[in-house]
Amino acid sequence: MRALNVTAMKKLEIIVEGEQQGFVVDLLDRAGAGGYTILHNLSGKGTHGVHMGHLMFNDDSVLVMIVTAVSVDLVAPILEGLTPFFNKHMGVVFTSDIQVSRLVKMPSE
Amino acid sequence: MRALNVTAMKKLEIIVEGEQQGFVVDLLDRAGAGGYTILHNLSGKGTHGVHMGHLMFNDDSVLVMIVTAVSVDLVAPILEGLTPFFNKHMGVVFTSDIQVSRLVKMPSE
Amino acid sequence: MRALNVTAMKKLEIIVEGEQQGFVVDLLDRAGAGGYTILHNLSGKGTHGVHMGHLMFNDDSVLVMIVTAVSVDLVAPILEGLTPFFNKHMGVVFTSDIQVSRLVKMPSE
Repeated sequence: MRALNVTAMKKLEIIVEGEQQGFVVDLLDRAGAGGYTILHNLSGKGTHGVHMGHLMFNDDSVLVMIVTAVSVDLVAPILEGLTPFFNKHMGVVFTSDIQVSRLVKMPSE
Repeated sequence: MRALNVTAMKKLEIIVEGEQQGFVVDLLDRAGAGGYTILHNLSGKGTHGVHMGHLMFNDDSVLVMIVTAVSVDLVAPILEGLTPFFNKHMGVVFTSDIQVSRLVKMPSE
Repeated sequence: MRALNVTAMKKLEIIVEGEQQGFVVDLLDRAGAGGYTILHNLSGKGTHGVHMGHLMFNDDSVLVMIVTAVSVDLVAPILEGLTPFFNKHMGVVFTSDIQVSRLVKMPSE
């Protein structure tokens, strides 16, 4: 039986309007993220940005949260890749530290 | 093109019964949280609290998770504001460290 | 009025195919986790594991994320309990640090 591998990674939680899901998923694929999970049909409101009163979402938006676990060195490229997108569309990214446990084939297999 | 701003914040994940969503959202608004995202139609069970065997949810509850990112100084007031609510209703709050990336208008704009 | 108790715990986010939800929930119950919350109808893709190109999910999978907060000493037993499961089924576990706020009965009550 193979063992679970535990790896320190970064979790990105990318919240965007549902119709923008495809762009984000493509960006993650191109950036080399190993996968993602999508939470659908979220609602939300972002009336005021922390510093500048930036309107993000209104109550009627149908949002998705795209969750991915990536190595630390992928965080900056993904955020840079999202910057032009966020200049046109609403959204926010949460980054946090996680340990990821998944099954890993042993080299001898 | 404007840059993404990255800010260290606290993520609050507030899990309550769906019908209590309005109270929590109002509390977040009044506390000055800059927005929130709501995950709907969760289920769950909390048979035993960590220390005291506190029944939280049963299998039939329809729950929501209200996610918000706030500055550190807002955590205590929000938890205090939730205390009377949690004396009447079931719920739990997860607090964790995150970095929030969103678009911020430059001062020159 | 009773006060909210804040406890440092580990959050486990266990992502599996929806049909496997029962196994995971039973495992958490047997391991002594005090409860869980289930997010339904997620989608996702795991085309390549970080190290080994392990196919996890395809686009058509309907996934669930089972969220639980446990004390640190329960993390290893739960991951060990999941290992035989992950040798047969797809899945991933995210572990992270959280503070859990919930209502706790005072000893004098």
